[in-house]
Amino acid sequence: MVDQENLRTMVTAPTPPGTDQRAEALGPVVVIGAGLVGASVGCALTRAGATVHLRDRRRSHALVAAGIGAGTVTPPAAREVKLVVVAVPPDAVPEVVERALKHYRHAVVTDVASVKTPVVEALRARELNLDRYVGSHPMAGSQYSGPLTATPQLFVDRRWVIADGTGTPDAVSTVESLVAVCGARLIHLSPADHDRAVAEVSHVPQIMSSLTAARLRDVPSGDLLLAGQGVRDVTRVAGSDPVLWGQIITANHEQIAAQLRRVRDDLDRMLEAIQAQEPAGVGEVIAEGQQGVAALPGKHGRSTTNLDTVVVEIPDAPGALARLFADIQAQGVNIEDLSIEHDIAKPAGYLSVAVGADRAADLRAAMSSAGWGLRS
Amino acid sequence: MVDQENLRTMVTAPTPPGTDQRAEALGPVVVIGAGLVGASVGCALTRAGATVHLRDRRRSHALVAAGIGAGTVTPPAAREVKLVVVAVPPDAVPEVVERALKHYRHAVVTDVASVKTPVVEALRARELNLDRYVGSHPMAGSQYSGPLTATPQLFVDRRWVIADGTGTPDAVSTVESLVAVCGARLIHLSPADHDRAVAEVSHVPQIMSSLTAARLRDVPSGDLLLAGQGVRDVTRVAGSDPVLWGQIITANHEQIAAQLRRVRDDLDRMLEAIQAQEPAGVGEVIAEGQQGVAALPGKHGRSTTNLDTVVVEIPDAPGALARLFADIQAQGVNIEDLSIEHDIAKPAGYLSVAVGADRAADLRAAMSSAGWGLRS
Repeated sequence: MVDQENLRTMVTAPTPPGTDQRAEALGPVVVIGAGLVGASVGCALTRAGATVHLRDRRRSHALVAAGIGAGTVTPPAAREVKLVVVAVPPDAVPEVVERALKHYRHAVVTDVASVKTPVVEALRARELNLDRYVGSHPMAGSQYSGPLTATPQLFVDRRWVIADGTGTPDAVSTVESLVAVCGARLIHLSPADHDRAVAEVSHVPQIMSSLTAARLRDVPSGDLLLAGQGVRDVTRVAGSDPVLWGQIITANHEQIAAQLRRVRDDLDRMLEAIQAQEPAGVGEVIAEGQQGVAALPGKHGRSTTNLDTVVVEIPDAPGALARLFADIQAQGVNIEDLSIEHDIAKPAGYLSVAVGADRAADLRAAMSSAGWGLRS
Repeated sequence: MVDQENLRTMVTAPTPPGTDQRAEALGPVVVIGAGLVGASVGCALTRAGATVHLRDRRRSHALVAAGIGAGTVTPPAAREVKLVVVAVPPDAVPEVVERALKHYRHAVVTDVASVKTPVVEALRARELNLDRYVGSHPMAGSQYSGPLTATPQLFVDRRWVIADGTGTPDAVSTVESLVAVCGARLIHLSPADHDRAVAEVSHVPQIMSSLTAARLRDVPSGDLLLAGQGVRDVTRVAGSDPVLWGQIITANHEQIAAQLRRVRDDLDRMLEAIQAQEPAGVGEVIAEGQQGVAALPGKHGRSTTNLDTVVVEIPDAPGALARLFADIQAQGVNIEDLSIEHDIAKPAGYLSVAVGADRAADLRAAMSSAGWGLRS
């Protein structure tokens, strides 16, 4: 059981709710689907001063969401509703959007589905007037789900895509206000461009992680003792929800299939080089991966090269991490990244701290002088 | 340029070198190949009181390793050498081991190559007496390389595999002493079992990460702005050295090819389900990945399920992380894992702290009360 008081504290902290003119102008808002994303939208709007009405097929979800400050379960007067946010699983979106357009006759209706083209096509196939519909997609979420994990800050500084090609200019500006009130950063993309981009940076990597993790089912448990941090990183997102991802991947099947076929071509090329025992051919694919990972924008868009990693042993004692960070930050080095590597056989872990390569030697020396155990 | 004084401090701290009877009995030791692993072995042995002679085809590497306390570049009297550690790239191992066995007539010779069967076969093909040879493999290293990153603690609490089937019992016990002096945990495996295990938990995941990252080369930079933490985790190890990995993967080609073909079968099954637009078939593969990742031992061998992640905003201010950890640990919660997620557009980052699911709500409430911004 979760303590509602604590959760209420959570969603209203750290700063007291201020009212936002844009938010008040948006309301009354109806959020259909009180999962992680829907409840978080409700929390952000409520906190900004908008009136939010929550609906969910599972009434318990709507009640929990209301309990953490996402809005009320009291139905509004349909004619007064100005905005409807549809936050249901991808397969249900077209049906729910159509009903919302018909029931809330003066409201702008948006959805938050991870794939945009199929939604627009399904709505067009229903021969609806889409002047009041604007498709969107907040790039937020986690491997967890449900209203209990909701927070008004889920979208802060995250990208929120508005899919161009539907809705009147007024309808679009209403959804732009929603994005602004949630603290997200607006990107306009065509549905096709959006679906290509999420296939590239989210859907295909998810599939590759799942394929890697699936093979671990056949690994003897003794062999798993040799597993290090690498395989844990590669397979972390494989923990995500199979039903939700089954719908997302199927909805974006054209983009994903085209990209996965290129992955399979690379895999076949790798297999041929391996079977021919050609180190150069194998190294070529590894080098291509090196180039690809270097293309990912790092902190503040900086490339992630020129970093060095200092690995410090963490005694499993109360406050050890706090003392460790105090010592690290006393050096005034800028921590670019960090992670904890656990030792499965003893309490201690190891903290990997990535810093500029030019600062690593000094940091190692300082940590050692302070009595911390270094691994690298 | 790196400050040699700092590096010396690094490798001798945090505890002053004590002499270890086993280490003295091991010496004089010759380490051939002064890269990350060879130089780290030299540091660990030197620190424990053994005499270590460093050799490297690139004399600069041997000199740098000597400079950080890994040993001396003065050649020993060949007849007195008791142990030779061959830490050269996989392809060079058989030739270097053969020369070591012939030049150091009374020494036990071991190697640290990531693949064992091909090394043993190559040595047998050279019709050598292998009484004094023992193959081994410390499960340590990083995406970085070279003696500057060496540390005597590289092997502490890491697995170090001794490959059974070669060497007399005396020779094996000499290498067991090496493992003990380096602070590693000994595992005896047949060469075949070792090569299967590293293919499963290291080589195949490395290839999958590289294949995922390689596709990012074709992604428009605008699309990369939508990249989140997931794709960064999946592709992190893709930054590794292509030449080294070309040799490792080729050397273990039989095991890897067999396992990669199963991955390709799963990929084909996924592609068919995607093209047939069958959410259930797609979800099946995602569910298999969920089972596989759950099989990985977590901290202290605990499964990684039943965790919840609290995400806190980190102001980019001096000491912010230290204060944050002080507040977290004041709650007495056990931090199971953590990572920093950067915002590429502003200085702040987000700290993800994984804690027992039963403690997450309390931690969120406490962090909020303390004025920290929560994202989830």
